[in-house]
Amino acid sequence: MNLNFASDNTGPAHPKVMEAVLRANDHAAMPYGNDPVTEAAVAAVRAAFEAPEAEVAFVATGTAANALALSCLVRPFESVFCSRVAHIEEDECGAPEFYMGGAKLTLVDETDGKIDAGDFAAKLTAAMDRGVHGAQPAALSLTQITERGATYSLDEIATLTGIARDAGLATHLDGARFANACAALGCSPAEMTWKAGIDAVSFGGTKNGCLGVEAVVMFDASHRRELALRRKRAGHLWSKQRYLSAQMLAYVQDGRWLEMARSANAASARLAKGLRAMPGARILHEAAGNLIFAELPRAAHARAFAAGASYYLFPGDTPLDGDPETPVRCRLVCDWSKSSAEVDALIASWAG
Amino acid sequence: MNLNFASDNTGPAHPKVMEAVLRANDHAAMPYGNDPVTEAAVAAVRAAFEAPEAEVAFVATGTAANALALSCLVRPFESVFCSRVAHIEEDECGAPEFYMGGAKLTLVDETDGKIDAGDFAAKLTAAMDRGVHGAQPAALSLTQITERGATYSLDEIATLTGIARDAGLATHLDGARFANACAALGCSPAEMTWKAGIDAVSFGGTKNGCLGVEAVVMFDASHRRELALRRKRAGHLWSKQRYLSAQMLAYVQDGRWLEMARSANAASARLAKGLRAMPGARILHEAAGNLIFAELPRAAHARAFAAGASYYLFPGDTPLDGDPETPVRCRLVCDWSKSSAEVDALIASWAG
Amino acid sequence: MNLNFASDNTGPAHPKVMEAVLRANDHAAMPYGNDPVTEAAVAAVRAAFEAPEAEVAFVATGTAANALALSCLVRPFESVFCSRVAHIEEDECGAPEFYMGGAKLTLVDETDGKIDAGDFAAKLTAAMDRGVHGAQPAALSLTQITERGATYSLDEIATLTGIARDAGLATHLDGARFANACAALGCSPAEMTWKAGIDAVSFGGTKNGCLGVEAVVMFDASHRRELALRRKRAGHLWSKQRYLSAQMLAYVQDGRWLEMARSANAASARLAKGLRAMPGARILHEAAGNLIFAELPRAAHARAFAAGASYYLFPGDTPLDGDPETPVRCRLVCDWSKSSAEVDALIASWAG
Amino acid sequence: MNLNFASDNTGPAHPKVMEAVLRANDHAAMPYGNDPVTEAAVAAVRAAFEAPEAEVAFVATGTAANALALSCLVRPFESVFCSRVAHIEEDECGAPEFYMGGAKLTLVDETDGKIDAGDFAAKLTAAMDRGVHGAQPAALSLTQITERGATYSLDEIATLTGIARDAGLATHLDGARFANACAALGCSPAEMTWKAGIDAVSFGGTKNGCLGVEAVVMFDASHRRELALRRKRAGHLWSKQRYLSAQMLAYVQDGRWLEMARSANAASARLAKGLRAMPGARILHEAAGNLIFAELPRAAHARAFAAGASYYLFPGDTPLDGDPETPVRCRLVCDWSKSSAEVDALIASWAG
Repeated sequence: MNLNFASDNTGPAHPKVMEAVLRANDHAAMPYGNDPVTEAAVAAVRAAFEAPEAEVAFVATGTAANALALSCLVRPFESVFCSRVAHIEEDECGAPEFYMGGAKLTLVDETDGKIDAGDFAAKLTAAMDRGVHGAQPAALSLTQITERGATYSLDEIATLTGIARDAGLATHLDGARFANACAALGCSPAEMTWKAGIDAVSFGGTKNGCLGVEAVVMFDASHRRELALRRKRAGHLWSKQRYLSAQMLAYVQDGRWLEMARSANAASARLAKGLRAMPGARILHEAAGNLIFAELPRAAHARAFAAGASYYLFPGDTPLDGDPETPVRCRLVCDWSKSSAEVDALIASWAG
Repeated sequence: MNLNFASDNTGPAHPKVMEAVLRANDHAAMPYGNDPVTEAAVAAVRAAFEAPEAEVAFVATGTAANALALSCLVRPFESVFCSRVAHIEEDECGAPEFYMGGAKLTLVDETDGKIDAGDFAAKLTAAMDRGVHGAQPAALSLTQITERGATYSLDEIATLTGIARDAGLATHLDGARFANACAALGCSPAEMTWKAGIDAVSFGGTKNGCLGVEAVVMFDASHRRELALRRKRAGHLWSKQRYLSAQMLAYVQDGRWLEMARSANAASARLAKGLRAMPGARILHEAAGNLIFAELPRAAHARAFAAGASYYLFPGDTPLDGDPETPVRCRLVCDWSKSSAEVDALIASWAG
Repeated sequence: MNLNFASDNTGPAHPKVMEAVLRANDHAAMPYGNDPVTEAAVAAVRAAFEAPEAEVAFVATGTAANALALSCLVRPFESVFCSRVAHIEEDECGAPEFYMGGAKLTLVDETDGKIDAGDFAAKLTAAMDRGVHGAQPAALSLTQITERGATYSLDEIATLTGIARDAGLATHLDGARFANACAALGCSPAEMTWKAGIDAVSFGGTKNGCLGVEAVVMFDASHRRELALRRKRAGHLWSKQRYLSAQMLAYVQDGRWLEMARSANAASARLAKGLRAMPGARILHEAAGNLIFAELPRAAHARAFAAGASYYLFPGDTPLDGDPETPVRCRLVCDWSKSSAEVDALIASWAG
Repeated sequence: MNLNFASDNTGPAHPKVMEAVLRANDHAAMPYGNDPVTEAAVAAVRAAFEAPEAEVAFVATGTAANALALSCLVRPFESVFCSRVAHIEEDECGAPEFYMGGAKLTLVDETDGKIDAGDFAAKLTAAMDRGVHGAQPAALSLTQITERGATYSLDEIATLTGIARDAGLATHLDGARFANACAALGCSPAEMTWKAGIDAVSFGGTKNGCLGVEAVVMFDASHRRELALRRKRAGHLWSKQRYLSAQMLAYVQDGRWLEMARSANAASARLAKGLRAMPGARILHEAAGNLIFAELPRAAHARAFAAGASYYLFPGDTPLDGDPETPVRCRLVCDWSKSSAEVDALIASWAG
């Protein structure tokens, strides 16, 4: 039984996605995206976003998608506002700064990973007031669902993008777990993005049943050429792009992306329910998607690891020795493939 | 019948490579390369190069491999010497400059894509003579087989790397078609690289039967940490790296990489033979690998295209109208999957 | 009477500095620093720092000095720790990121502009814990005197550089007001730098009686070549460098730099004394150098401006209308040229 | 007697320029260009160029001026066309690439440093034909007078900028010796720039009687904000900018810049005349400005150096031993201060 809850990138790709990759292999195709599978996949993403004019570009990683999107929106002497715990700040080893040619990230206070509107407005005003001496505010980047597992409501997104737009900033959504957010909110991709004031999206597939594919979606087609050139220059244009596109096509077709996200969210909800019923356990952040941050007694973790479970403890929270009752924090992630039995087995392993 | 000779990236991946990807999908695995498939693939590449200490990193594109390797060898105020027609100069949209933080490429005269040793030495001496005013020579990059289809002999490589090393330069080999060169020369990977003075290799899999995988191989392990960080920062570290690694493992195992290259070279030799026998046709560059540059009468091209063939004509050589006898240049590439029947069909289509 | 207290860059250069520039003009000299004035100025700076092996490079601005020094210490995938209000963060429009090729600044909490050692250590530990996903800690940058006018004691510097060195970080001192700090602490340049664990200094002249000259001083001579090349590449190597060097030579000779700083600090102390005696006025930060942050009733500012005074109010603190008694914050800076009469006239102008 | 003909940056600044710097020192002034001297200098440059809307920014070096101007015209995935011997290619240690964020220089064949229109058109067409694989042509940069001392005619400039504009490229003029070209051609600054299709100029003062000042002049004011921010980010915004501006004001006022250039050109013409009359001497490039490339017998050089002369020989042409009659190449530069007596003395020294 698979007790790996470390990340939504530890599980397998969906069989239909694998099939699509295999099917893309049974014929010759022109390279660099000049092939029918790519054309179909781009059309499918545009349709999913109700955005027939949007620019859509596929890359293999979320870091590349985020950095490419931002590099089209921000010049080197400008800055991007994001939360203190944003993936682009903490987990991309400076990729955004690299792609943007040295532009800055300006960090904003957050709760559950969600940007505080007041702090954003205050930092924005201060930055506007520095003349040529400060980096110029140019973009806002949100993560949905956040790095702490929370979900912005559509109103919350609109409020933040409204502040940004009033000051002339572009807006980006890091959607590594876009599908999980759509499933949690019960809204459409359009509602969560351009209808809520978002200009560019990193639409993730990798964590939700693909091998490795993300779509950069820019609703303003004026960046078309720039995006294509920046992708090439970054080494992210595949010669055999059909293998990327096939994944994305299978992912978007027939609502598979949403179905997988619902499955992951349901597994996570089952896990959360189990945690709430567990003595000594506590959920640390609101959890509507597939990401749970929780606290359990050290002994519970030890029992689970002994039973073969795998997930991350917080750096600094030592698991192996010390008082068995001390709460130790962890992150638990369910992907599309997690079964009820697996979730129940993890819960059982904590109880011992 | 597949008459696509446009590139070695138009054909399918090898069935064994696809199988390996499928197999990597049947279990959970830790992300970012902390998985057994990656470990095995790294070991296989080291073994193939007889370089147990080498640093090996997988990425999905050749442009990424080249740019990453060079960025570890060259600082922003330095320069790389390469041929005028090098892929890193003409076909990567500035990726090397991007990754190296603005370092320069210094172009050297070539024949059949092979760097002229005299011009290299002369340009190197001139560059050494500019004090702080010129970019500082730091590396030499060769392509094997070259962008014109030619192959450096081991002695030629050693001569060029000798000049480089005497001046303190590091050396890089763009091996997008590394396998075809090894097959053509009948030498080992070690003989063609570190034994001939090469420090870093882009070892290509994509053009030779993989979906999309290249290995950066650095024989000097002192760049280990830097390479890992630069790959991450460029968005080229895959979370589900097992799907990259599985390709590379299947590619290197059982000498499959060499077997496929031999097959591609044989198809190309058959094609060359056909061309030599054809009235009005002429081969433009020495052709030991799987790449042929040739000249055919305009009418021959027209007949082939009418028969469904696909390949590139030279920019500027207009194919569709004008004198039917005028020679028009083209590039013809065979990949591992090209059969004798397909080659013969292309030849037949020219004759009409 | 000069009532401009806006900055230490509004006043004149010292007559001896101007004389030196004139003197450098009376003969031909070889360019790019290959002249005797540059040689003498470099020697003078080395002597002042008791560092005969130090690398010394002159540039015209403090931003260039800081960015160049950091670019020799930090690679693009690394980060620099500095205070939230550091000049390199707030007032250089991203110059450090530009010169460092996109490396990050990691912001640390501060009091009076001085970095909090506990927060530094905590952020450093967290950053060390991210594997390849986070930018790698590489340097610590302190400002002395700080952007809020405070002065680190020698022990405080040593404590912070000790934490940095234990983690393998290099250390930089932004000494735009280095002289004012030395004068305030009564210590030698060596004591405030390499004896306290500092690797590289931006030694400022511009704010303290020069036209525009700063010295980058690196105690580890291994950066010699890199610094020279980076300066050239940034457009900061002057062809007629004698005009930069002449300023620095006159500045350092005969302890003039220290004498000017003492004069500025004394004027500032006289001003602080006046403020303390003033009803409704309050000094906001400790003030040992030549920088005062204070709060005065709105009406006092209005009277001073009417009398021709010039200085900065805080952004957001509206000066011109509203309640005359509301405290409004301001920054007051004395340079070497401020006379007691001028200081007294400013104080008198507030009183009205 | 000053026999230094090594460069036009070895001589003194003009007394009127020095006076202006002194005068800027006798009063307080607001920093960062918010001072009346800067305002007047900007107005003077605009008037000289008959371009009341032009954006004008002062920096201290020609390398900074060139790199800043280009960085406003060219994005990181684009390229600049320039001659093989352009200063931006050979003598700026990669500054343009640094400022442009890694964009490329594409080198064009030249005669006497002047770009060959046919080669430019051919290379441009080839570059346009590479889709996303090649860096995108974005600008043309000319040097006037060229690095070999030649002068483009107004028609030649218009022809080249015409080719550029037809392809959508912006145009830049490196005018380190702009004044010498205007004097040689007897044309106005407007005629040599925007009337001939130039978008941006580096208008040099340093080599022609200033301490160190160049103006970036952009005729399209849409780059205003970007130029200001890029200058700041590069560390080239002076806090005490009045000292830069005062030089430029004195330089442009009363046609002093042109008067000095005429003087330098006249000295150079006298020198050329002397060379033509000399047995064994030969002028290598057309010489209408203040730069001469010539060939003299080794023994003549030896005599001149023995007499105290100073100038550069070509790298590789060894001066000190070997056959006394062998021709050895040199570069001879006259600045505004060169007297007839000094020129005659140099000529006499060769004759011995």
